[in-house]
Amino acid sequence: MIGITIIGTGVVAKHLCEAFAQSDMVILKQVIGRNKKALVHFQNYTETSSDFKGIKNSDIYIIAISDDAISTIAEHLTDKSGLIVHTSGNISAHVLPKEKRRGVFYPLQTFSDGRKIDFNTVPLCIEAEDENDLELLKKLAGTISKSIFEISSDQRKSLHLAAVFVNNFTNHLYAIGQDICQENKLPFDLLKPLLLETAKKTGDLSPIDAQTGPARRKDQNTIDSHLKQLRHKNQKEIYKALTRSIKETYGEKL
Amino acid sequence: MIGITIIGTGVVAKHLCEAFAQSDMVILKQVIGRNKKALVHFQNYTETSSDFKGIKNSDIYIIAISDDAISTIAEHLTDKSGLIVHTSGNISAHVLPKEKRRGVFYPLQTFSDGRKIDFNTVPLCIEAEDENDLELLKKLAGTISKSIFEISSDQRKSLHLAAVFVNNFTNHLYAIGQDICQENKLPFDLLKPLLLETAKKTGDLSPIDAQTGPARRKDQNTIDSHLKQLRHKNQKEIYKALTRSIKETYGEKL
Repeated sequence: MIGITIIGTGVVAKHLCEAFAQSDMVILKQVIGRNKKALVHFQNYTETSSDFKGIKNSDIYIIAISDDAISTIAEHLTDKSGLIVHTSGNISAHVLPKEKRRGVFYPLQTFSDGRKIDFNTVPLCIEAEDENDLELLKKLAGTISKSIFEISSDQRKSLHLAAVFVNNFTNHLYAIGQDICQENKLPFDLLKPLLLETAKKTGDLSPIDAQTGPARRKDQNTIDSHLKQLRHKNQKEIYKALTRSIKETYGEKL
Repeated sequence: MIGITIIGTGVVAKHLCEAFAQSDMVILKQVIGRNKKALVHFQNYTETSSDFKGIKNSDIYIIAISDDAISTIAEHLTDKSGLIVHTSGNISAHVLPKEKRRGVFYPLQTFSDGRKIDFNTVPLCIEAEDENDLELLKKLAGTISKSIFEISSDQRKSLHLAAVFVNNFTNHLYAIGQDICQENKLPFDLLKPLLLETAKKTGDLSPIDAQTGPARRKDQNTIDSHLKQLRHKNQKEIYKALTRSIKETYGEKL
């Protein structure tokens, strides 16, 4: 059995808590958070506390809070002997107290309140300084997911950057699609099967091979007509930057 | 029963042919195409011909070929009385012979060779100049899809533009994600659950509300560190353009 403590009450903490609650191999000892109201939800799973001085002993402390608060909060754990990990994609394990056993437990997924996630398929990117700690994290990860990757801090930073492209930026392109629909009295639902298939296709076909559209085939008439249609400066700039990049990516292949 | 003739042998023609072949309400009379080799596939479904002068009579002629060839190919149909439609998102019905019954039958989806599409959920955007022809197209569309939309030429042009954002441009963001992974010896598979969930989330949550990430929360440290990490000029430009747009979109809400 692995005893764990979750520090944080946000959406990542919630999803982790729910996933671990379903494992027979994990005891969720405590959930700690400043926000008493947010802690109420976690009372369904285990003991909760807003007192960072009364944190109980645990095998692993999982800090699931915003990036800039991690190092401050971790100071409350300097008297603990357990392994301390955070769940951030963008922060080194070195922000954790250097005299402690430390590591990273980064679930590479986008979590939202109210949307169920099948944790079995969520890639868990783990990192630890000590070989035994790495084994412990592998064991912990294995209780909720089949997709476990040992990733260095440098790799994780790149992965987080790549995630910004395929998640944050992609979502903004969806928002622009929605905006264009609204301006032309079209339901955004019209685009949903298309955007879903575009994502699903990556399972069969590498994106570099799947590219289609006016920029790919260097159809300047359509590109010009699209640029004329776009009313917002930022949308035009995004259109231009992506079109240029697609054109140059496939420049030699045409 | 509706008799149809498909002109074209590309991927849209293939998917339409397969979908209509499953309907009891449609007779696929002929598939016409220049490319004899490409026609072989269609012999499994119906009679094929590469002779544009010997096109048989049909209720509806569906021209599923590249945009710039549509008007030329349609000239072979000037002696026909059936309804002539094309399948393009970006071209007006007016490129078809003006003395003929004409319209548009635009399936809003991305089609690839070898990937099965559930046509039932593919939005079919139809347009016709005559009310009876519109009814005929609705009937035809209803034989393969539950998602039928009457869309004007102007709206269709906007829809096609929106589709470029959520399909072509999104796919290019996936390709950049893949590129960053490869440069850092990370498997692109790591990102697939994330990009799939990002797309699926649109079913529950409007993209404008689903936005997260450094640009959304105006986390300039992370943005600067990402820009430093990016090695390619075009990727930097795309990052900047999307970040600026996200920042400005949420400017007043922070």
